[in-house]
Amino acid sequence: MIDVAIMGHGVVGSGVAEILINHNDRISGRVKAPVNLKYILDLRDFKGLTYSEKFIKDFNIILNDKDVRVVAEVMGGVNPAYDFVKKCLQSGKSVVTSNKELVASKGAELIKIAEDNNVNFLFEASVGGGIPILRPMVQCMAANDIDEIWGILNGTTNYILNKMIVDNMDFDSALKLAQNLGFAEKDPTADIEGHDACRKVCILAALAFNKHLYPNQVKTEGITNITSEDIEYADSFGAVIKLIGHAKKLPNGKITASVSPTLVAKDCILSSVNGVFNAVMLNGDQTGEVVFYGKGAGKEATASAVVADIMDCIKHLNARKYLSWEDGDNDYVDMAYDPETRLYVLIKSDDFESLKAQFNKIFGNNTTNIKNAEKGEIAFITEKSKQSLVEQKLSLFKNGISVKTLNTML
Amino acid sequence: MIDVAIMGHGVVGSGVAEILINHNDRISGRVKAPVNLKYILDLRDFKGLTYSEKFIKDFNIILNDKDVRVVAEVMGGVNPAYDFVKKCLQSGKSVVTSNKELVASKGAELIKIAEDNNVNFLFEASVGGGIPILRPMVQCMAANDIDEIWGILNGTTNYILNKMIVDNMDFDSALKLAQNLGFAEKDPTADIEGHDACRKVCILAALAFNKHLYPNQVKTEGITNITSEDIEYADSFGAVIKLIGHAKKLPNGKITASVSPTLVAKDCILSSVNGVFNAVMLNGDQTGEVVFYGKGAGKEATASAVVADIMDCIKHLNARKYLSWEDGDNDYVDMAYDPETRLYVLIKSDDFESLKAQFNKIFGNNTTNIKNAEKGEIAFITEKSKQSLVEQKLSLFKNGISVKTLNTML
Repeated sequence: MIDVAIMGHGVVGSGVAEILINHNDRISGRVKAPVNLKYILDLRDFKGLTYSEKFIKDFNIILNDKDVRVVAEVMGGVNPAYDFVKKCLQSGKSVVTSNKELVASKGAELIKIAEDNNVNFLFEASVGGGIPILRPMVQCMAANDIDEIWGILNGTTNYILNKMIVDNMDFDSALKLAQNLGFAEKDPTADIEGHDACRKVCILAALAFNKHLYPNQVKTEGITNITSEDIEYADSFGAVIKLIGHAKKLPNGKITASVSPTLVAKDCILSSVNGVFNAVMLNGDQTGEVVFYGKGAGKEATASAVVADIMDCIKHLNARKYLSWEDGDNDYVDMAYDPETRLYVLIKSDDFESLKAQFNKIFGNNTTNIKNAEKGEIAFITEKSKQSLVEQKLSLFKNGISVKTLNTML
Repeated sequence: MIDVAIMGHGVVGSGVAEILINHNDRISGRVKAPVNLKYILDLRDFKGLTYSEKFIKDFNIILNDKDVRVVAEVMGGVNPAYDFVKKCLQSGKSVVTSNKELVASKGAELIKIAEDNNVNFLFEASVGGGIPILRPMVQCMAANDIDEIWGILNGTTNYILNKMIVDNMDFDSALKLAQNLGFAEKDPTADIEGHDACRKVCILAALAFNKHLYPNQVKTEGITNITSEDIEYADSFGAVIKLIGHAKKLPNGKITASVSPTLVAKDCILSSVNGVFNAVMLNGDQTGEVVFYGKGAGKEATASAVVADIMDCIKHLNARKYLSWEDGDNDYVDMAYDPETRLYVLIKSDDFESLKAQFNKIFGNNTTNIKNAEKGEIAFITEKSKQSLVEQKLSLFKNGISVKTLNTML
């Protein structure tokens, strides 16, 4: 019999408990050993559940019980999760987690501790909820070098942008709707400012490139500045706006990473990822583009990924999974990277004649697709060139002309 | 040092050899043991290659060399691949294969032999080329019961249909173009009649439902009857036509499986799978819909999947991967299954007045979307109902009215 403990009985934790209990035959059958949920750690009381007797409030009960071989950390936040996970690993227990904040900030250290103690630390559920990503990246793509990753990694922002695109809603209304439907939190900052997507980019990049990437190394921009007119202009350029997490390995061995609202061509499969769905696209040197798509959040989807990790730990109690990355150097990320790219540009002025004159002087014919709105605006997609060159040109606009740019995958 | 042998030096086999040789540091590093390509079995001569000394013509050299622990079968066809694979497994060698015909017809038996001999038999490359599917299904979805699978599993037919949709080509021209570009074989039967997709459905269904499904248990229909007008009507119904492989577990425990040209709604992500790309969509009871997308064929993509399997075998020389299915019973497949579905129907007649009169009498208002062409046609999507009921109604059309139906995912 394999004893398992869960730390945290929130949305995901209760989902994990329910799967382990309600589908115990399935789980035990597939790992060829009876799996027993022994403890659930939570400071709150949960009376009247069929499994209320499993609740404990003292972490040391789990830590000191040698029969507990696998612990699921689904508390969220860095503290005390970090301390608990570390102690479990050090005492020879495998740990699985859905906690992207923990993995993004402490992943390299915890993986090292797991290695030193010959146990597993798995975190499939921390990226993309129920979408299988971790194993496909590490195992199926094993013969590949992955050089670039793009992802739609946050369901809340994808839902909001989708409502703006399909139902012509403005940002505020779409956010309010998302909040009313439970797709966005009361304080939506972590989602709409891109912090959540940023953490997932860190984990994906670490898996792909084998070095830890920290959140502060990722240029992160949310979707709060996206307006209905940006959505319309994007449409006229054959694109939709998505919040894209991106990481790329550069020829110099360094990487560059960002989260930003980005124009995605309608014939790119990422443009079809709608609602609360997430997707991750990888480029492997042998296999080319590969995409994984599914529900990025939600109780059952996330909990099932946690349980899959628990099952994998049980199958590998005596054989570590090959999964590791090193800590990144200080100069691992090229913060000054200047990509060859196309930008979406929207320039506005009360004085449209001056705007047109300046535009023609600065850009001439050096753009693809130009749209002139009636009200003193020009939107266009720049020719492919070094971003710094475009920015240099844009800095030439004067006399009350406002300039807005967005990244593109065009 | 781990010795590896390749059987077959065609497109995939030469790709496997090149990866094992050119990326040997990467491969050996990741499995933490030097990997040595020792033999390549092929009856043909390959002189002038940097690795020409590895070629042999006698299978027994591989079979009798105890140092060869992993064999990649990339010959294709059932014979002699079946015999060779069986003997390798029986003598304690792990085998990986890209041979869908072999896995679809002999998978259950070969898996059993692998189990009995405590070695691995892996076949990631046999479904969807370079798309990671096998491990995501077996490991990541481990906590789920998968109840339905849909796939775009054949790049040739997807390319042809795409050309018909995007460039308004007719079937014959699109096929000819595909042949000229090397996306279709001179004899395209296996692709355009759906046989290739059928074999992949068998493998996916076996992985999902743990019982072998044989090709003759799958209702298989190709794309040769699809015309430009079907494509146009589908478009007017908000759909595109794709060759969809489908398998579903029924409440009675049996399964139903088919390959057929199918109308797919434009807001379904499968509608965005274009060109030679493939995709597999699964429904898990916990995680909901999950999609895997990538290149379904091609030398490097397929070879990299074979190499990933080789690496997994090396990592698990002493611990079998949990991957198995049983042989299916005779009545495992419900051939008489009568789904609740919508059908696309196109009825034609030289006598349009009679056609309209009969249509109104038989269907009344019981359809969604009706399109009347000028030239004596009515195309429509039926209301959702038992397929047998629709077919009963369609059999009532008389007096030279032709009736064509297609499946839908609407």
